Amino acid sequence: MADGYVQANLVILPEADAADFLAYCRANPKPCPLLGVGRPGDVSLDAVAKDLDIRTDLPGYRIFRDGVSTDRVSDITPYWRDDLVTFALGCSFSFEHALLDAGLPVRHIELGRNVPMFRTTIPTVPRGSFTGPLVVTMRPYRPADAIAAILLSERYPLAHGAPVHMAFPEAIGISDLGNPDYGDPVPVEPGEIPVFWACGVTPQAALEQAALPFAITHDPGHMLITDIANTRIVGVDQLEV
Amino acid sequence: MADGYVQANLVILPEADAADFLAYCRANPKPCPLLGVGRPGDVSLDAVAKDLDIRTDLPGYRIFRDGVSTDRVSDITPYWRDDLVTFALGCSFSFEHALLDAGLPVRHIELGRNVPMFRTTIPTVPRGSFTGPLVVTMRPYRPADAIAAILLSERYPLAHGAPVHMAFPEAIGISDLGNPDYGDPVPVEPGEIPVFWACGVTPQAALEQAALPFAITHDPGHMLITDIANTRIVGVDQLEV
Repeated sequence: MADGYVQANLVILPEADAADFLAYCRANPKPCPLLGVGRPGDVSLDAVAKDLDIRTDLPGYRIFRDGVSTDRVSDITPYWRDDLVTFALGCSFSFEHALLDAGLPVRHIELGRNVPMFRTTIPTVPRGSFTGPLVVTMRPYRPADAIAAILLSERYPLAHGAPVHMAFPEAIGISDLGNPDYGDPVPVEPGEIPVFWACGVTPQAALEQAALPFAITHDPGHMLITDIANTRIVGVDQLEV
Repeated sequence: MADGYVQANLVILPEADAADFLAYCRANPKPCPLLGVGRPGDVSLDAVAKDLDIRTDLPGYRIFRDGVSTDRVSDITPYWRDDLVTFALGCSFSFEHALLDAGLPVRHIELGRNVPMFRTTIPTVPRGSFTGPLVVTMRPYRPADAIAAILLSERYPLAHGAPVHMAFPEAIGISDLGNPDYGDPVPVEPGEIPVFWACGVTPQAALEQAALPFAITHDPGHMLITDIANTRIVGVDQLEV
């Protein structure tokens, strides 16, 4: 969808919880790269898209009450409140686009699957009620391609940047690459290295774990598509937020 | 020696062979990063050092005749000719300095050994009579440090840049990490990845293999120390040569 444009994970929280979540994102920039933060009650987010109405412009949302997903909807206008703050967080689509452009294959895309994701034993830096493990995605590469993928993804800090780990899954608490915690498994062929990047599910897991009275996120795979070209975020670690 | 300044491998050839060697270096920039090339007969090399006399300012030289090292000397004035061309090629000391500064340990330095070097099955791009295998150095790192070392060394293209391979030595023809072709072995501990960088011995091996009637190199470990600060070559892939 909208090839070449930055896509974002969405988190919407009451102002009472927003400061802690902002601090959590700033303390964990690899899994939680901040593309934009709204003002309380504001349904636009000029930093990432013009003429945005955050209540209707995503194809799907999830409503959380006390940390439990209670509804999946395509319009959050009935849920909107004047104290809600919108967070747009970078996702890996931008660097996957760059990998493909560079001739570096992305296994789960080749197979038409969702990327495999794993909860690790690497803790995130807690802030307020937000805490939890780092969640990572895995993409297998032959060594020279792994090196190229590391160098390329480093240029996209707003899309999780360079990998956090590789080669030894068990060292970060992953016992079975064939059994991801989220997404679909993909094979790691002989001669390939599993390479692990920080994942945008990390803040979602922290959010669920915080069991806030009220929160809204995008429905997985139903991203906020921004007006920002992928090429504009090369080497950029902060937009005008 | 002269901590913080770029050190260089030295190759001196008759003008008749210099054009092919220059082409070989340009075709294989990772093992043969060009810091400076002299004019025929010129004993200075302003691009890399002021007041240089290339005949006397290195602590040791090797003289080659028909591809065989016949003499080791500390002054090449008796061998100098008006048709000799000087090449200064970058070496890994610059990025090793940066690795240590960044808190990334370098195993062979910790152990007081020479870096282990291996001839690989990766061919270099031949030019004229210059050809041969890529020679690599090996430094072991835990995964997160390996990623950091890859990113850091990429910033030093004149010191061999990012690694060319990692993790699977046998994939590039290295059957025993404990038995390097040059230098000393170092242990790879459990949980560490062997990481392989292009090595300045590559052009030396090509030179020996070409069996030129006459050539001079530095004596291994007896480098040309330049006036160029390591910090000046960050992100630079060509000096004023």
